[in-house]
Amino acid sequence: MVKDFMEKYDAIVIGGGIFGLTSAYHIKRENPEHKVLLLEERGAAGQGNTAKSAGCFRAFFHSKTNLKMANSSIEFYKHIQEVEKFNLGIRWIGYLWLFDEEQFHSLEPYLKDMEPLRIEYRIVSNEEIKEKINPNMKASESGISGLRNIEIGLLVKKAGKMDVEKLVEYYESKFKSIGGKVAYGIKVNRIIVEAEEKLGLPGEPYFWQKTKATGVEVEGKIIEAEKIVVAAGVWADRLLHPLGIDTYQRAKKRQVFVVKAEGELEKLLYTRGFNAEGCLPFTILPQPRIYIKPDIDERNFWVGYADDFLRPIAIEDDPQPEENFYRYGIHPILSTYMPQFEQAKLVNSWAGQYGINTYDGQPVVFQEGGIIVATADSGSGIMKGDAIGRIVAAIYNGRREVELFGGEIFNVEDIGIEKRKVEREKFII
Amino acid sequence: MVKDFMEKYDAIVIGGGIFGLTSAYHIKRENPEHKVLLLEERGAAGQGNTAKSAGCFRAFFHSKTNLKMANSSIEFYKHIQEVEKFNLGIRWIGYLWLFDEEQFHSLEPYLKDMEPLRIEYRIVSNEEIKEKINPNMKASESGISGLRNIEIGLLVKKAGKMDVEKLVEYYESKFKSIGGKVAYGIKVNRIIVEAEEKLGLPGEPYFWQKTKATGVEVEGKIIEAEKIVVAAGVWADRLLHPLGIDTYQRAKKRQVFVVKAEGELEKLLYTRGFNAEGCLPFTILPQPRIYIKPDIDERNFWVGYADDFLRPIAIEDDPQPEENFYRYGIHPILSTYMPQFEQAKLVNSWAGQYGINTYDGQPVVFQEGGIIVATADSGSGIMKGDAIGRIVAAIYNGRREVELFGGEIFNVEDIGIEKRKVEREKFII
Repeated sequence: MVKDFMEKYDAIVIGGGIFGLTSAYHIKRENPEHKVLLLEERGAAGQGNTAKSAGCFRAFFHSKTNLKMANSSIEFYKHIQEVEKFNLGIRWIGYLWLFDEEQFHSLEPYLKDMEPLRIEYRIVSNEEIKEKINPNMKASESGISGLRNIEIGLLVKKAGKMDVEKLVEYYESKFKSIGGKVAYGIKVNRIIVEAEEKLGLPGEPYFWQKTKATGVEVEGKIIEAEKIVVAAGVWADRLLHPLGIDTYQRAKKRQVFVVKAEGELEKLLYTRGFNAEGCLPFTILPQPRIYIKPDIDERNFWVGYADDFLRPIAIEDDPQPEENFYRYGIHPILSTYMPQFEQAKLVNSWAGQYGINTYDGQPVVFQEGGIIVATADSGSGIMKGDAIGRIVAAIYNGRREVELFGGEIFNVEDIGIEKRKVEREKFII
Repeated sequence: MVKDFMEKYDAIVIGGGIFGLTSAYHIKRENPEHKVLLLEERGAAGQGNTAKSAGCFRAFFHSKTNLKMANSSIEFYKHIQEVEKFNLGIRWIGYLWLFDEEQFHSLEPYLKDMEPLRIEYRIVSNEEIKEKINPNMKASESGISGLRNIEIGLLVKKAGKMDVEKLVEYYESKFKSIGGKVAYGIKVNRIIVEAEEKLGLPGEPYFWQKTKATGVEVEGKIIEAEKIVVAAGVWADRLLHPLGIDTYQRAKKRQVFVVKAEGELEKLLYTRGFNAEGCLPFTILPQPRIYIKPDIDERNFWVGYADDFLRPIAIEDDPQPEENFYRYGIHPILSTYMPQFEQAKLVNSWAGQYGINTYDGQPVVFQEGGIIVATADSGSGIMKGDAIGRIVAAIYNGRREVELFGGEIFNVEDIGIEKRKVEREKFII
């Protein structure tokens, strides 16, 4: 009931996904005396697109901003699991990109750039791939245009998967444990922006008036706050566009298909020699870059593909997976590269949406009109989630620099708009 | 009638605004043997947001891409009027920015950067402004927060206004005179993208299939073309988002208000000493940057303001001007800076939309999936129109470089997405 929340807050965070949770937690942690309210439209935290994520992560990026955000977040998640002893279900299965020689050579200059960072990876030879995974090494001869041979692999160690529900639970419980308030099942209809000095003009505030975001409207009532944080994922557009604020993202549907690891696939699931888990790493095919994520707990594989051209830009409330997308899109390619998937049995599927930054593929965090916006997850929201929350908290507290977990200093304006300073990522999926 | 256009074209250009017209013309000019069809939803060319433009131009930008595009286009318009003797109604009234000292000092480094370009401008002293224009020099003392004193002016010579209808007429007639075909009153419902090799799969093409844009659907019929150019302004989103292609623009309403130049305003209209026309230049107030455009033919002033925060991002089919926006938004500020406007009589108004590139404020031209897109006019479509058309024609012909009018070479990828290379403009309105 909204009436339970009708006091005035220092901060209202809109959106109970990963960006909203980390933002709310870090704001409250840095400002224990502030009243912080997290509002989520669904009945619980992390039920929107956060829940649809594949839950994979890697501390391996060419772009420095990407790397800083992901590495510090992953270090923090590791800390949560290993030091705080809160099990996030992290498994260090690694990422394995499969390439042909041409693709690999085009990436070598970037690997060289990254040398000073001493990021652990190893080159996997043709022979090793053949021996351990036994894929079709000659997909270029399949008759399907655009497929490439598998000739070399790049195995990244500091990478893996985690249980997103656990991560949500962690931030939610921590936030509540330090006095943060959550309100679920409550939809924000609009953000209230008012003239600081109301003059009674019809249609005010006008552009020459000083304004302030004063609260949010829910169920016809106003909940007041000193500061509003919008972390509503693809739905942020609906709150911000009416205020003239861009979100710098475009919504695209993303689907996950789960197949049973039986027979040949069971053997593939327990591929040894790449990680301590004794399973296939999170594996990315040469082209199209279909990914394969092993799930040894459930004896499944998750497969997906981030299609771009012809995948409509559209915000959906309840996106549905398309079986045909698996059957005619993913499966023919997957089983051409990996014949083990030929008879794979589809057992589950779901769809979510990415808020894609179509310019540079990285998140955007900024303040406009007194509203802090954290948006454009671009498909890597989970693995950068903790850093985003700390950046939001820094903006909330008026700081231009933030110390990410592990001590690295990050200039918050680097992922803002005015002084944005990010490079396009070279290692994409 | 659509049936009059049911042949196969080499190129279909969607949108009869300035970008569509210049694109169609330059494609046809460079490829006289190609069949080029221009499709426009309205009953004539230039009736969408092109018609709503203030029709002003300046060859004065700090950003090199902005400057190249505007300068070459203006040179071409000058050529049309002076050499081809087609009257575009160009009047070199100049642009006059009014600043306080602080604003001006913050721009001085950029003026210094621009010195090697030898762009003609002059500093207008406090005394000269006072004597010639007689504004309220002390708006900062008005009690309205944010207003600044007028202390110095920057007068740009190669700048002015033109008759947009004439410009539209020029490109349309030239395009038709070399065999280009136009179809008005015909709405494109969608762009057809098909698999090059159809396999009969339900829902094809899939991401692994080679595809081709093969035509457009109008009134339930398909008009085929080898190449599609989308230059549909803010409405481009409706054609491109379903194909997963971004337009890199956000639509915002922009309004023009026309007031009669009577009494004190008539004197202001005929301000001498700034240009050969003997009228006030196109003038921009210090802050908020309301603009004033003199119209000596009609004895009017056009005034407007590009409001950003709180102006909704929304595509509209028939945007309407808001009298309150003039009355309570523009007028109080305008008449504080320029008391001559106190009793100004509003005689006309209209509204259009800009397709704003919210990242860097400049147009975007690129090719994706075989579709050429020219979009994100960002409010300077008229003054860059000719360059955009030549850039589109270069992409159409597979060239990476284009010679703009006057001989300057422009790298088309500079205003694309992948290798975009533009700087944010410092001299904005």
